[in-house]
Amino acid sequence: MRLIIFTLVVLLEYISTACGYIVDPGPVVIASRGLIWPQPKNIVIDDTFSIIRPQKFEFNAVKNTCDILNESFIRYKELIVAEAQRLRKIEVRNARKSHERINRINYEQWSDDDQFTGFLESLTVNLEKPCEDSPYLGMDESYKFTLNNSEAVLESESVWGILRGLESFSQMITPGSDGRSLMINSSRIEDEPRFSHRGLLLDTSRHFIPLETIKMVLNGMAYNKLNVFHWHIVDDHSFPYESTKFPELSAQGAYHPTLVYTQNDVAAIIEYARLRGIRVLPEFDTPGHTRSWGVSHPELLTTCYPPYIGKLGPIDPTKPAVYDFLRELFGEISHVFPEQYFHLGGDEVGFECWSTNPEIVEYMKSKNYTKYEQLEEEFIQKVVDIIDELKSKSIVWQEVYQNQVRLPQGTVVHVWTGDRKKLMSQITRDGLPVLLSACWYLDHLATGGDWTKFYSCDPLDFSGTPEQKALVMGGEACMWAEVVDDTNVLQRIFPRASAAAERLWSQSSGFQVKERLEEHACRLRKRNIPAQPPNGPGYCL
Amino acid sequence: MRLIIFTLVVLLEYISTACGYIVDPGPVVIASRGLIWPQPKNIVIDDTFSIIRPQKFEFNAVKNTCDILNESFIRYKELIVAEAQRLRKIEVRNARKSHERINRINYEQWSDDDQFTGFLESLTVNLEKPCEDSPYLGMDESYKFTLNNSEAVLESESVWGILRGLESFSQMITPGSDGRSLMINSSRIEDEPRFSHRGLLLDTSRHFIPLETIKMVLNGMAYNKLNVFHWHIVDDHSFPYESTKFPELSAQGAYHPTLVYTQNDVAAIIEYARLRGIRVLPEFDTPGHTRSWGVSHPELLTTCYPPYIGKLGPIDPTKPAVYDFLRELFGEISHVFPEQYFHLGGDEVGFECWSTNPEIVEYMKSKNYTKYEQLEEEFIQKVVDIIDELKSKSIVWQEVYQNQVRLPQGTVVHVWTGDRKKLMSQITRDGLPVLLSACWYLDHLATGGDWTKFYSCDPLDFSGTPEQKALVMGGEACMWAEVVDDTNVLQRIFPRASAAAERLWSQSSGFQVKERLEEHACRLRKRNIPAQPPNGPGYCL
Repeated sequence: MRLIIFTLVVLLEYISTACGYIVDPGPVVIASRGLIWPQPKNIVIDDTFSIIRPQKFEFNAVKNTCDILNESFIRYKELIVAEAQRLRKIEVRNARKSHERINRINYEQWSDDDQFTGFLESLTVNLEKPCEDSPYLGMDESYKFTLNNSEAVLESESVWGILRGLESFSQMITPGSDGRSLMINSSRIEDEPRFSHRGLLLDTSRHFIPLETIKMVLNGMAYNKLNVFHWHIVDDHSFPYESTKFPELSAQGAYHPTLVYTQNDVAAIIEYARLRGIRVLPEFDTPGHTRSWGVSHPELLTTCYPPYIGKLGPIDPTKPAVYDFLRELFGEISHVFPEQYFHLGGDEVGFECWSTNPEIVEYMKSKNYTKYEQLEEEFIQKVVDIIDELKSKSIVWQEVYQNQVRLPQGTVVHVWTGDRKKLMSQITRDGLPVLLSACWYLDHLATGGDWTKFYSCDPLDFSGTPEQKALVMGGEACMWAEVVDDTNVLQRIFPRASAAAERLWSQSSGFQVKERLEEHACRLRKRNIPAQPPNGPGYCL
Repeated sequence: MRLIIFTLVVLLEYISTACGYIVDPGPVVIASRGLIWPQPKNIVIDDTFSIIRPQKFEFNAVKNTCDILNESFIRYKELIVAEAQRLRKIEVRNARKSHERINRINYEQWSDDDQFTGFLESLTVNLEKPCEDSPYLGMDESYKFTLNNSEAVLESESVWGILRGLESFSQMITPGSDGRSLMINSSRIEDEPRFSHRGLLLDTSRHFIPLETIKMVLNGMAYNKLNVFHWHIVDDHSFPYESTKFPELSAQGAYHPTLVYTQNDVAAIIEYARLRGIRVLPEFDTPGHTRSWGVSHPELLTTCYPPYIGKLGPIDPTKPAVYDFLRELFGEISHVFPEQYFHLGGDEVGFECWSTNPEIVEYMKSKNYTKYEQLEEEFIQKVVDIIDELKSKSIVWQEVYQNQVRLPQGTVVHVWTGDRKKLMSQITRDGLPVLLSACWYLDHLATGGDWTKFYSCDPLDFSGTPEQKALVMGGEACMWAEVVDDTNVLQRIFPRASAAAERLWSQSSGFQVKERLEEHACRLRKRNIPAQPPNGPGYCL
C-alpha cells in the first residue's frame, strides 16, 4: 500500500511538472464565497441561508453600547449598502452589453429555494460589559456569533470582541445565486485571537505617507483583525512628527513644511484607530536612525572625525543634555499617544563615528569601557529609565537584548533579523516577552508573489518550554518605506500582510487558504483598498 | 601616481562600506531640475532662462499642421497650466502652515536677474512636411529645438519628430527659484532615436486592464518616447478581445461579459496611441497560449489523452479547419489594427499533449516527422503564410526561430529568454531583424528596486558585424500580468520601463541618470501616473 501511494505521489508530481504548458482557462484560483479571513477558531457553516435586504437591515445593540459600537454599526451598514450598489452597477453594465432590461430584484423567488430560511432583518448585538475606552495589549477580542433561521446574534464580553465579530459577520455576506441579492449562510462561530499583539509597522520617514492613506491602512488592518499600528514615524531621512515642545525638529527635519503630521493629524489617526480597536504604538528610534533630528539639533548627534569629516553619527551618549532633551520629547510623546508601550528602537547602531570622536574615546576610557556596546548599553539604560519614569513600558529591537543591556522586567524584545528561532528561544529563556517580525518584511520582494512564504512562518516555531512559548506576544508585518510611498504602499501591504494576520489570529490554518485569500483580496478592493492579486491570473468583479 | 590613485580608490570603497550607518538626512538622490528623460542625442543648456506665464503661452504651427499637431498643443498646454496650478496649491498649503498671505506672482522680480532673458510667449513649430496619418516602423522622429533670448523654435521634417520635441520641451519647464513661476533654460537640442522600435508589452489576458488604465499606460509611454504598444491581448486564461466574426470567443472566453475590449474600445486605444505617435502592435499568440480560445472553440485545440485526460492542449495543427478559422480571425485583426506588423507569438509550445493524441501521432508518421518541432514548424509556416497573404509582416518569439521554421525575409525574431547575446548574434547572422526583451521583464522583481539592472542592458551588446547590429530594430519592456492588475500595473511599469526607454532612445547614457530618473518619476506623478519611487528615500512635491 505504501509503495502504491509513493508511486502515485511520484506520478502526480511528474504530471504536474510535465504539465507546465497544459493549463485550464479562467482564474488560477477560484475565490471562495463568504469565507472569513483570518480563519475563526471554531466555525460551523450550514447550507441554509438568509437574504439581506440592505436598506432594511439593522444592527441592534440590546445591552451596553457606546460611540465605538455606534460608529461601527454605521461603517458596516455602509459596507453592506455599498456592496449592493456595486452588484447593481455590474448588472447595469451587463445589461447594457446584452441590451436587456433590468428588473427590480425579485425577493419572492427565494421562497422556492429549500435552503432559504427567510430575510435577515437585523443583527442583535449583546455587549455584556460596558465599553472600554481604548484598546490595549491583552484586551478581550473573543466573540460568539450564531445565525439560525434568520435570527442572528453576536455576543462578547468586550467591545473589542464585538468589533471583531462584526468584521466576521460582514465577510460572510456574499452575492446570492442570482448575482444580485446579498445572502449569508446559517452558521455558528466561537472565535478569539491566538496572539494579542498583531501589528503592522509603517515607516513614514523614508517616504511621507499622507493622512488619508494611513487611514486606508487602518481600514485594511481592521479588515484583517490586526490590532497594533506600529508607527515608525521618524528616522534618518526625515522627521515628519510636528512636536509641540520642539517644533523645529519637523520644521527643519521634514522633507518639506507640508509633509508633516501635525498634532491634529496624530490625534486623528489615534482616534480613527481607536474606533477600530487598533492601538497606535509610536516608535522614536534612538540612538541610531536619528540623522534627521540633527538638522535642527546637531548638538544631539555625534560629530564624526576623519575619515568621516563633516558627517554626523548616532546620538552622542556622553552628553548629559541629550537625556534632558529626550526626557522632554518622550514626555510629550507619552502624553500624545495613549498607548502603554513605547518603541525605543535601538537597532543598527553603527560604531564607526563614535570610534573617531576623541571626546567619546576619552569618556569610554574614564568609564573603563572596552567595547562600544557598553556605551550603547549606558545610553539605552538611561532611555529605558526615562520611559519607566513616564510610566510607559518599553519595546526594543533585538540588538538591545543582544548587546546585553539590562532590561526591566516586561520589556519586550522585537526580533527582526538573523536566526529568529535561536533568538526567540534565548530571549524567552531569559524571561522576556517577544515579538516576531523577521519573516514578515513586506519590503522584501520576490517575483510572482510571496504571501505563502509569509504564511508558512509561525511565531511559536522555536524550541522552548510552554512557559517560553507563553512569552510570545505576537508579531508584526513591517512596511519599511525605502521604495514605497503613496503610489504603491497599500498595494504592497495588502494582501501580503493578510498572511501574517491569519498566522497571528488563527489557531488552525490551511483551510482553503488560497481560495479564501483570493476572495479576501477582492473583498479589500470592494472596500477601496487596492490589494494586489495574490495568486496569479484571475479577476475581481 | 597609480599607487596613490589605487590607494585612494580602496580607501573610498572602504569608507563607503564601513559608512553604512552614517547617512545624510533628506532624499538619497536629489532630483535634477528640468532635465530630459530619455537623454537627447545632443543638448547644450545655457544658464540664461526665460519665464513662462502659463495662461499667455501659445504653440504656433507656422508651416504644416493637422489633428495630431493640434491635439498635442492642447495636451501640452494643459500640462503647463496644470503644473502652474499645482505649484499654486503647494504655496497655499505652505502659507496655511505659516499663516502668511499669498501674493500674486511678481513677474517684475525677474528683470533683476542677470540670467533672465525675458518671457517666453510662444513656441514656434516648424513642421516641414505634411503630417503622416499613422505611426510606423522607421518613421522619422528626429527634431531640433532652440531656445535663445526667449525665442523658441521646434522643427522637424515629420509630425512624429514634433511630438518627441514637444515632450522634450515640456520636460525642460521647471519651477523657478521663487518656487512659483515656471522657468526654462536657454538651450539647443538635436535629437533622434537610437532604435526605431521602442516598445512596451502589456498582457491583458492574465488580468483584464481597464480601458482608462491602458490610456494611462499610453500617456506614460509618450512621456518616455516609447512608440510601440505591444498588445498581448489574449492568452490561456482569458480572451477579452471582442471579435466581430467570432463574438463567442470573448462571450465565453473572457473572465466576465463586462471584462472585454469591444471594437469601439480597440478603436479608441488605436486612435489614442496614434495621436501620441505610438503604434499598436497586436499579438494573437498561437499555437500555445490559446487555452481560452477553446472555451467556445474546443475543436481548434488538441484533445489530450492519458495522463492528461479531460485537458485541452495547444492548437491542433493537423486539422485543416484550424487554418480556415485563423485566416478569418487574422483577416479581421489585420483590418482592425492599422499596424503593418502582426505578432504571431509561437512561444512555449508544450509537446506533452500532442504526444498523447493518436491522430497527431498518426499524422506525424504520415509526414515522416520524427520531432514535434517539425509539426510546430508546419503550423507556424502556414500561419506565417496567412499573415503574408494579408500583406502583414510577422514578428515571432524566439522559439519559432530556434525550432528552425523557415521564415520569410524580414520576419522579426523577438528574444525573451536564454543566452540573449548568443541568440541575437545567431539570428542577425542569419540576416533576420531582431527585437530584445530578455533583460526587460517588468514582472521580475527584486527587493529595493531594479531599474539599474534594466538600464545596464544594451541591445547591441553581442558579437557581430556592423551589418548584424543594423538588424537590431530595438526592444520592448514586458509587463506580463500574472500578478498585476488595475491596482498595481502602472506602479510596476513606471518608472522601471523608463530605464529601457532611455536605453532604446539615447545614444549616450549615464549623464546624471539617478538624478534625472528621480525627477522623471516625480514628473510622471505630476501627470497622474503613479510612478513608484526609483531610488530609495525621498519625496515628490
